[in-house]
Amino acid sequence: MNNFVEIATPGVRSLKPYQPGKPIEELQRELGIAEVVKLASNENPLGPSPLALKAIQQQLLDTARYPDGNGFVLKKALAAHLGVSEAQITLGNGSNDVLELIARTFADQDAEIVFSQYAFAMYPIITQAINAKAVKAPARQWGHDLDAMLAAITETTKLVFIANPNNPTGTWVNEQNLRHFLENVPRKVIVVVDEAYFEYASDPSMQLAGYPDTLDWLQRFPNLIVTRTFSKAYGLAGLRVGYAVSHEGIADLLNRIRQPFNVNHLALAAAAAALSDSEYLQQAIKTNYEGLKQLQEGFHAMGLDYIPSGGNFVSVDVGEDAADLYQALLREGVIVRPVGNYNMPHHLRISVGLELENERFLKALATVMAACHA
Amino acid sequence: MNNFVEIATPGVRSLKPYQPGKPIEELQRELGIAEVVKLASNENPLGPSPLALKAIQQQLLDTARYPDGNGFVLKKALAAHLGVSEAQITLGNGSNDVLELIARTFADQDAEIVFSQYAFAMYPIITQAINAKAVKAPARQWGHDLDAMLAAITETTKLVFIANPNNPTGTWVNEQNLRHFLENVPRKVIVVVDEAYFEYASDPSMQLAGYPDTLDWLQRFPNLIVTRTFSKAYGLAGLRVGYAVSHEGIADLLNRIRQPFNVNHLALAAAAAALSDSEYLQQAIKTNYEGLKQLQEGFHAMGLDYIPSGGNFVSVDVGEDAADLYQALLREGVIVRPVGNYNMPHHLRISVGLELENERFLKALATVMAACHA
Repeated sequence: MNNFVEIATPGVRSLKPYQPGKPIEELQRELGIAEVVKLASNENPLGPSPLALKAIQQQLLDTARYPDGNGFVLKKALAAHLGVSEAQITLGNGSNDVLELIARTFADQDAEIVFSQYAFAMYPIITQAINAKAVKAPARQWGHDLDAMLAAITETTKLVFIANPNNPTGTWVNEQNLRHFLENVPRKVIVVVDEAYFEYASDPSMQLAGYPDTLDWLQRFPNLIVTRTFSKAYGLAGLRVGYAVSHEGIADLLNRIRQPFNVNHLALAAAAAALSDSEYLQQAIKTNYEGLKQLQEGFHAMGLDYIPSGGNFVSVDVGEDAADLYQALLREGVIVRPVGNYNMPHHLRISVGLELENERFLKALATVMAACHA
Repeated sequence: MNNFVEIATPGVRSLKPYQPGKPIEELQRELGIAEVVKLASNENPLGPSPLALKAIQQQLLDTARYPDGNGFVLKKALAAHLGVSEAQITLGNGSNDVLELIARTFADQDAEIVFSQYAFAMYPIITQAINAKAVKAPARQWGHDLDAMLAAITETTKLVFIANPNNPTGTWVNEQNLRHFLENVPRKVIVVVDEAYFEYASDPSMQLAGYPDTLDWLQRFPNLIVTRTFSKAYGLAGLRVGYAVSHEGIADLLNRIRQPFNVNHLALAAAAAALSDSEYLQQAIKTNYEGLKQLQEGFHAMGLDYIPSGGNFVSVDVGEDAADLYQALLREGVIVRPVGNYNMPHHLRISVGLELENERFLKALATVMAACHA
């Protein structure tokens, strides 16, 4: 009996794991390039908040103790920051963990889970892992078509995932459309609004008039779950902290199935500190706004189409050879993200970096495109 | 629709979460006691290894980047340390994560999962979460009865959990009995040997003649999975790193369902460094050996029975009022672990601490027992 696939659960049998962005060290090992620019994983180019680093330093000697499984300090800080109760919060090992907990709590092999074409890659993976049926609603101009998603809901739909803004397209749905959607979804269907890029999209400087404030709606729509993360604007991707805000009854269920120590001790401390560092957050949003402008102007100058983005990344149409171009960029020491797995073979997704990183990418792109078309 | 339990999956509906040991800060908040001794979570009383702390310091500035999802550096270090290949290793957010991945990979609502009476509390919780059927084999003198476990295996058994040594009893099975068990289990049944306390039990000074070296058996028994952790002897409970070693085919499946960034960046670095700190490990084992002796002598002097332990904890029979005694010890500023949830209402589980901590506990125990029986 060495054919283990045969004895695995049906969901796992045909499961293909998530493909992360290439780590800097990996490219350095493979190609011997010292100066690598990574714009591949929607990370915060500023590095971590100084307050978060200080909090980690203060907790170092306590790492032989288990973390506080209830996340008392972080939940208290989040509740005050968001204007919700601690009992509404579920902490996760990144928001990925929270999304998986939600799926495992409300869906099984008899369930349908609805999400949009081009939606975040973890939704189909999480759905497959529990052997539920993925129902993909067609997109409209790369973005979520909420009417199509509403039409996709059936008697067996347990869960809807909406990424707002969506990764990798950067598209977002506005307040009016999302409210209309929630008003028309049956109350026994859980709607997850995944706001991993919330802080970028909600900033007035982004001029995204109409980006919804979903936390305000939790009372009106008890089947709504909002998820957010410390991995993007808060700059703590390496530490894995995300959270869900929901009705207390939903949070109770999610916390039952949550691993008792899913968020690590240093991560809990760092996240609470990062939350208090509003100066860092403003700097992160400003850097992103300027970098996004820089990239878009660069694409415009090169005559390339891109999808307008509400996140800290932008997907650009580079023609039919995006996979080749990705490889050519690696050889220039620049890591970006191919999105062929999203059925977007003409696009590359570029995370917004520091000014010099964006510049190095734009130059490398011009170089490899000239070489490819020579 | 505010009755969310109704729309949850059957497993989650009746799921009761794991109850962690009381955190020191929680007792300080509740009772205003400054000097708390916690001997409740089988943590390493030495604090973390200095090499692990140094590794964390060196990686601090990288925490805005996602962790290496493949855990390249840690897997390489583990493979060399254990004499296995990197492809045989699955990393987890603590070994709890690995145990859950194994259950979700091989069992679903149609499966039976076999474990022993008094076995580690996460096995029934993990089983319930996926709505599988828990089959509990009766124990023999608190320990796993492998013959009874063998007899409990049916056509629908997918998985067997063996904790060796077991928490909270400290009992362990020897090489001969475990080999006999593996020889007689059908090859399509996955056998997990959970060796969270391996480093304590395998040390010659513990004189545990016959504690098995299960990694040697992986080739012979391809259905065997061995799990270990950095939370106990390696002193990194707060960082959440565990791992499974198995046939490559099993590791491939586990890594498909694993969350892509389940182990955080600082944890990966700290674990690799701790693995190289053999001086720390020897000190941890020595401290445990002496502390276990101190506790056992203390119990003997008080006329209390205890279960001989191969781990870094010992369960002592304090009579019918263990829950009251636990509360009374809290008021003395000493946190231990009640094990009523294991159906062991007469026992308290004491983690081995530093000499002064053990002494403070023994004195507090004498005080509260005298008061209770006055």
